[in-house]
Amino acid sequence: MKQTTKKIEDLGEFGLIRHLTGDITLKNPETQKGIGDDAAVLKYGGKFILVSTDMLLEGIHFNLIYTPMKHLGYKAVVANLSDIYAMNGIPKQIFVSLAFSSKFSLAQIENLYAGIKLACDNYNVDLAGGDTSSSVTGMSLNIAVIGEAEKERIVYRKGAKKNDLICVTGDLGAAYLGLQLLEREKKIFLSNPEVQPELEGYDYLLQRQLKPEPRAEIIEFFHKENISPTAMIDISDGLSSEILHICEQSGTGCKLFADHIPVDPETERLAAEFNITPLVAALNGGEDYELVFTISPGEYVKVKDHKQIKTIGHITARKDGCNLITHDGLLVPLQAQGWDAYSKRPQR
Amino acid sequence: MKQTTKKIEDLGEFGLIRHLTGDITLKNPETQKGIGDDAAVLKYGGKFILVSTDMLLEGIHFNLIYTPMKHLGYKAVVANLSDIYAMNGIPKQIFVSLAFSSKFSLAQIENLYAGIKLACDNYNVDLAGGDTSSSVTGMSLNIAVIGEAEKERIVYRKGAKKNDLICVTGDLGAAYLGLQLLEREKKIFLSNPEVQPELEGYDYLLQRQLKPEPRAEIIEFFHKENISPTAMIDISDGLSSEILHICEQSGTGCKLFADHIPVDPETERLAAEFNITPLVAALNGGEDYELVFTISPGEYVKVKDHKQIKTIGHITARKDGCNLITHDGLLVPLQAQGWDAYSKRPQR
Repeated sequence: MKQTTKKIEDLGEFGLIRHLTGDITLKNPETQKGIGDDAAVLKYGGKFILVSTDMLLEGIHFNLIYTPMKHLGYKAVVANLSDIYAMNGIPKQIFVSLAFSSKFSLAQIENLYAGIKLACDNYNVDLAGGDTSSSVTGMSLNIAVIGEAEKERIVYRKGAKKNDLICVTGDLGAAYLGLQLLEREKKIFLSNPEVQPELEGYDYLLQRQLKPEPRAEIIEFFHKENISPTAMIDISDGLSSEILHICEQSGTGCKLFADHIPVDPETERLAAEFNITPLVAALNGGEDYELVFTISPGEYVKVKDHKQIKTIGHITARKDGCNLITHDGLLVPLQAQGWDAYSKRPQR
Repeated sequence: MKQTTKKIEDLGEFGLIRHLTGDITLKNPETQKGIGDDAAVLKYGGKFILVSTDMLLEGIHFNLIYTPMKHLGYKAVVANLSDIYAMNGIPKQIFVSLAFSSKFSLAQIENLYAGIKLACDNYNVDLAGGDTSSSVTGMSLNIAVIGEAEKERIVYRKGAKKNDLICVTGDLGAAYLGLQLLEREKKIFLSNPEVQPELEGYDYLLQRQLKPEPRAEIIEFFHKENISPTAMIDISDGLSSEILHICEQSGTGCKLFADHIPVDPETERLAAEFNITPLVAALNGGEDYELVFTISPGEYVKVKDHKQIKTIGHITARKDGCNLITHDGLLVPLQAQGWDAYSKRPQR
């Protein structure tokens, strides 16, 4: 780690991680892969295990005005399980660290844990440990997850090859629109608490924001159909940001087709109301917890009829860059404009 | 989890954990031991791995007025490694989640990581993953640690038996006195920044508070001498609290002898200055990161000459309770008066 005169804002989240950890050399043979993918890969006694960890802060990652505690607990777990699925693994245990101030009642903490346990039950994961503490203000929640995978089945970000097809599960941008809806109703509520929130007709968007589900069944499908993605990542920061990670680590470019990127009609409808281009929400929105993966063209026949998988483009040579072909046929370079933890830091 | 009308303050930290997680049934055969010891025990492919996680909050667990960032990073790692050693295991990887507000400079974060990496180097551990994020205010730091152990060598809290000897490593209470010293100088500094802090002559206490070391070499010693402790725990919350955990989980009582509890002369000297009974600091002070363990009487011969191990009492029948024999020969029930995260929560 070289001392730098740069500022954290200039580095950005991923630049900061590279700056702080770029000089690390792994010492133990048990550590097969460290920082830089959805999960670390460890080898213990011939078995490969996956580890990921994720911290959520009140006021940064969640707003308790419109996030019920049970949903918060559920979503915090899901976000972590998604990282294990993104490596083509099966999550087995989570470890929950929680700190909260005295503004929280026992009933609230019980509800948080009810959500955590529900997610554990739904995805057959054990809550196997953790830490509870107090905080000066607000809530901090960290979840570490451990999963397992067979060595040959682990999918990294780095394996994409020229001409591989790029596929995405489900649809994109809905969680972001759900958040915009909640933010709008929060503002209305704060200016006039008498007004009832208008959330009707947007159940899907709210569910995608408040109670997302990770793509466990896609991993099962891969297993059953013997599909080996060449690269994979889950969509937590937006499709653009994620596909750029794959291309950077694989040393490739990509071409995505705007026409093929799946967006739900409800997302389109609310996007129109907000005057947001649905495609922008899909590219940069984040929190969809869908999977984006690449497969060799020969495997296309295995995925083409799956209702939850759409082929949205292909991998190109690095020199061709990472581009989007718009509805009008224009070629636009992809940019990572998704979530960056340090772009807009509160000044406290 | 039954809904309760109790308050968090009434439950206390350990009561809260029991309340929230007491109804958990483990679902996966890979999860051998969940919540309730220094680390969870997982079994992957015939190998046993240990997992522990610990969250530190600014203003609760550390005060940046007198904690250099590098020391904070070092100590945060050490506290976690100590949990793996307390299970008679060898730590292998850590995962660091960090959230901080914009009051922190890049240089400060670099120093924090320098401390984290130094601890990793000193104890041959890999920094294998993590998460960085921003926070609304202050710093939250979570470290998850993974270690390994042979199945037969894992030491739980629950294995102590009547007549087993109770041993402790190093000396106790020094970290607590170090903290008192720093707190005093902080107050003086805040009331008059011109006054230079008077820290001289207390290097050992400051080192114990700011840069503790876990007892890796004791675990090596156990291995080399083929010593099998029947129960073990590390001292993070104070000797009383820890020995009560062992007795509770082992279904036993205990008898400790005040005369035998190791206290450093420097601790005694500063305790006198502060008008604190050194024994109270040793019993309730916490953060010593020493190990307290029990062995069958037959193994006494193996430990009796080790300079860093003191025998301080023995395990009794549960009905006899957990007691301390004072210098005057009085029998006093042990009480857990160490750190409780919820006893004094700030009202924000």
